[in-house]
This record gives sequence, structure tokens and C-alpha cells, in this order.
Amino acid sequence: MSEAAIAVVGSVAFDTIETPIGRAEEVLGGSATHFAVAASYFAPVRLVGVVGEDFPDPEREYLASRGIDLSGLEVRPGRTFRWTGRYHEDMNVRDTLSLELNVFADFRPTLSPLVRSSPIVFLANIDPTLQDAVLEQFEDPAIVACDTMNHWIAGAREPLEALLPRVDLLILNDEEARLLSGEQNVSRAARRILELGPRSVLVKRGEYGAILFSADSVFAVPAYPLEEVFDPTGAGDTFAGGVIGYLAATGERSEGGLRRAIVYGSVLASYVVEDFGGQRLRTLTRDDIDRRYRQFVELTEF
Amino acid sequence: MSEAAIAVVGSVAFDTIETPIGRAEEVLGGSATHFAVAASYFAPVRLVGVVGEDFPDPEREYLASRGIDLSGLEVRPGRTFRWTGRYHEDMNVRDTLSLELNVFADFRPTLSPLVRSSPIVFLANIDPTLQDAVLEQFEDPAIVACDTMNHWIAGAREPLEALLPRVDLLILNDEEARLLSGEQNVSRAARRILELGPRSVLVKRGEYGAILFSADSVFAVPAYPLEEVFDPTGAGDTFAGGVIGYLAATGERSEGGLRRAIVYGSVLASYVVEDFGGQRLRTLTRDDIDRRYRQFVELTEF
Repeated sequence: MSEAAIAVVGSVAFDTIETPIGRAEEVLGGSATHFAVAASYFAPVRLVGVVGEDFPDPEREYLASRGIDLSGLEVRPGRTFRWTGRYHEDMNVRDTLSLELNVFADFRPTLSPLVRSSPIVFLANIDPTLQDAVLEQFEDPAIVACDTMNHWIAGAREPLEALLPRVDLLILNDEEARLLSGEQNVSRAARRILELGPRSVLVKRGEYGAILFSADSVFAVPAYPLEEVFDPTGAGDTFAGGVIGYLAATGERSEGGLRRAIVYGSVLASYVVEDFGGQRLRTLTRDDIDRRYRQFVELTEF
Repeated sequence: MSEAAIAVVGSVAFDTIETPIGRAEEVLGGSATHFAVAASYFAPVRLVGVVGEDFPDPEREYLASRGIDLSGLEVRPGRTFRWTGRYHEDMNVRDTLSLELNVFADFRPTLSPLVRSSPIVFLANIDPTLQDAVLEQFEDPAIVACDTMNHWIAGAREPLEALLPRVDLLILNDEEARLLSGEQNVSRAARRILELGPRSVLVKRGEYGAILFSADSVFAVPAYPLEEVFDPTGAGDTFAGGVIGYLAATGERSEGGLRRAIVYGSVLASYVVEDFGGQRLRTLTRDDIDRRYRQFVELTEF
């Protein structure tokens, strides 16, 4: 089976991150970046985003070395998106200390014919109106997956709800699922969200793993138990990259295929938190991924 | 393989429970009760506890109808242990509104020869000094499992730590594991606790399931996703009852056997929270248990 190409639309940024364990300055981040690097282990990725003139060649070369097509990465006058955040002792909680959208503030991509023809689309966490405007430009994608966040659920609910019927897989965390549905219980929340139109809802639960709800099945997988989490930044997008990457690589559309994809996503996410700012993935091999996939089998089988 | 008998030592109580969904007055509760009822689906159970003269015959008959040996259930002048609690909107949090130990205040059981010969022992959540004094009386148990809580970890750490090397399976929740180990990360917490002596540590994570740590393996299972939780009271003891019951019934001592036992424990716990005060188990059949075990397979397989 040939690998289907994935188009991802989202942010490319520099992150300054403080966690109880340490600090990293201006490391390569952003939702599209984390997603693209993770997915690139499985399938060709086309990254649609924007950076400033300050975006360094070595970072561009790193992404290109992962086989990521950067023809859709626009360079605009000005600076690249920057985010500074600090994690609490409980790393499920973080504060944004500063946010400079810079060139990302006016991000309105026009897709190239190559990107438009992509069979698989991931709409990373950006304004739902923009997600919709981007999705309109694709020819006939076989799989559309989408992420969102509290900010858009609270402030752009109408365009988000308009988008959901065209989404095959909505990926969000448990808090976001509660906010979107108005239900405290995650199972009820997911049922409500399914009524809004997505074919499946994949709820991320951080250190507790993930749970997939479809019309007639539920799949739950724990997270890989790590003794040390260095930096959770990008874990969600890396997870999504593993999930969608595996689906693209295998052409799997079955429930079983989606389940295996979620385990691969969990594998990638378990690695990315082992170092700051996605550094761990710079040395990660496909063998590492397959080894930890087998560890997931050992972790969960009974 | 013949079923090995289980002795459980703990509280028998009447609970008055308020949750966001409703209220139950003076329902049969207590750690030993919940454990015994759950375990009785799998193996003979001998309950060691104390009640007052107010303990009603119908409740005694219910326990006896489950095949639970009540020769170790002492009746003392006075009233049975009573607890009143209120759960928050987030049912992981509860307040104790009143606590009357009554006859349980002087609980110092002397075991009968029958109970002393039990091959499997569950020390429910009572003072570790008392757990130790009880354990001393057993002849040569093949499996010793033990529960504890924050109150004892903070206030009776020394006797608790003295007990742990004689425990095969320590069952506690994630918050208790953190308190006992001084480690925030659950994997590191469990490693520390293993150093204190128990052969395995089983960490309960409520709606997120459970995770088992042994010297050379880790097993994680999600909780069964329920759309409605009526009352979490007794879920932990019911879980333990399913785990130990299955081990007793099958004679399993392997890692695989312990994993399957934990899934059976998860099945029982998923049922008990579906109604107030253990009522759901009054009508539960072995077929219900096996059906939901298969649903756990479907929930987790990939």
C-alpha cells in the first residue's frame, strides 16, 4: 500500500518553556511543527504555515531532513510566532507568560495545487474560521482530522460547530470535551460531541492516556508510564502526528487500524515529553518507535 | 482447581451518602462488606468484623446468601459503625460529614481456627497496628493483600512500613501512593513503595483505571467508561474483592493471572458505582460479570 501524503495547517513557533525540571529558550515549536515531525516517521507531510525572516536555516533543514515538504511554509517580513510558558509542579497545568503572534497574526494561507490534492488533512489548533477556509481549498480529502482548544470553544463556537460535520476525527483533551459538550462525564461529553457531526472523537487525557469514541465502539489506552516528564509541550500535536501518520502510511480505515494508530500516537507522545521542545524526536529512530509499541502491548495485554 | 478461601478483616458499617445525583440513608457499607460481597462471586469468603446489636437480620441473611461465612462477625453491645459523607460535583472528592465508630472503636479480633487457616488474606483499610496483629494470627497464608489510606500513612507510618514486607499485594490510590512515597510521579512513587517490601503495588486511579507495578513489569487498564456514576462509595473495596476473588478462584499466581484478576476487579467496581451503597451487587449475576469482562477486552484490544 502506498503512503498517502498528509497536509497539516497550523502554527510554527519558538517556545520558551519553564518546567519544574528545567528551562529551554526559543526552541522550535508550534502545533504544525510537532505534528509534522511526528507524522514524518510514517508518511510524507506537507506543512502549511508561516514564519518570519528570523526563521533559521538549520531549523528549515531539520524539517526538510524529515522529508517534510516546506513549499507551503511562507516566509513573511517580521518575526516568527513566539510563546513563553511555565508549567506548575503538576505539569497538567501551565501559565502562558507571553504570546507574540507576530507574522502568524495575519496567517491566511492559499494552498498550492500540490497541497490541495493531499488525501489526508490535519487542521491543527487554529481559529475554526480559518480551519474552515483552509479545508474548503482541499480537493477531496479522504480523512480530515482536527484539533481545537478552550479559547475557540468559548469564543468561536459557531464556526467550530459548523466545521465538525466535515471532520472524520476530532482530537481534543478532556477539559475541552467538557467545555464543548457542557457535560462533566467524559463518556456523555463524547456522545454529545458525536451528535455535532465528527465521525469519531479522540479524547486526550494526558498522563492517563486517550479514549476514542465512535458511533458503536469505545477504545481506551493508558499512557506509557514515565518516571520523568521533562516537558509536555507539543505532546498533543505529536500524539496526533503519530495517529494520522500511521493511518496515512497504512491506508487503514477500520476501527482496528484507528486503534493501532492511537497506540502509535501514544508512543510518539511518550517520547516527546522525555526532553524539552521536541529535542527527543531529533534522535528518535523508527526502531525506537516499534520497540515502545511492543512495550505498549506488554503494558496493556491481559 | 479448588477455590481457596479468603479471609477479610475490616469494617462493617451503615453509610448515609449524598452525591450530586441522589441520597441513600443507612445503607450497608464498610470496607469488609464491600470486599466480601465482590469476592463472593468467585470464592468462599470469611468475614471478620464487628457489628452492634442493631445489625438487622435481613442484612446478615443477605451476606450469608452470598456464601459469606459470618462466624467471625462479632456482635457487641452498642451500635454499628456509621458514616455520613457527601460527594462533590467532581465525585473524586468527598467530605465526611459524620463518623461514629461505635462498636468498631474497640475492634480487636481474635481469629477462629477456621479463619486462621485461610490461605488468602485481605487486610482492609484499618489501623496498620491492627492489620499486623491480625496477620500474626494466620497460619501460613499464600497471599496477603492489604489496603490503606491517607489517615494511616500520615499518622501510623511506622507500623505500616513494618507491615509492608509481609504483603504480596498493596492496593492504594494514586494520592495515597504519592503520600506514602513522597514522589509526585506515580511510576516513581510505585518504585519507591516496592522498595518498602510489597511484592506488587496496585494503584487505583478512579475513573482512569488502575496500574500494577511489580519488580519487572507494569500493567495498566482503563476504567470501564460509564455515562453515569451514582455513588463511588465502596468502589475501591469492591475492586479489591474482584481482584482477590479471582486469584482465589483460579489459584493463579502468574503475572498474567494477576492482570486478569485486575480486570475482574475493574468489572466489579464498574458495576457497584451504578447504584447507591452496593445495591447494584444485590442483583448482579456471574453472567453480568463475564459479559462486562468481554467488554473490557473490546475496550482495550488493538
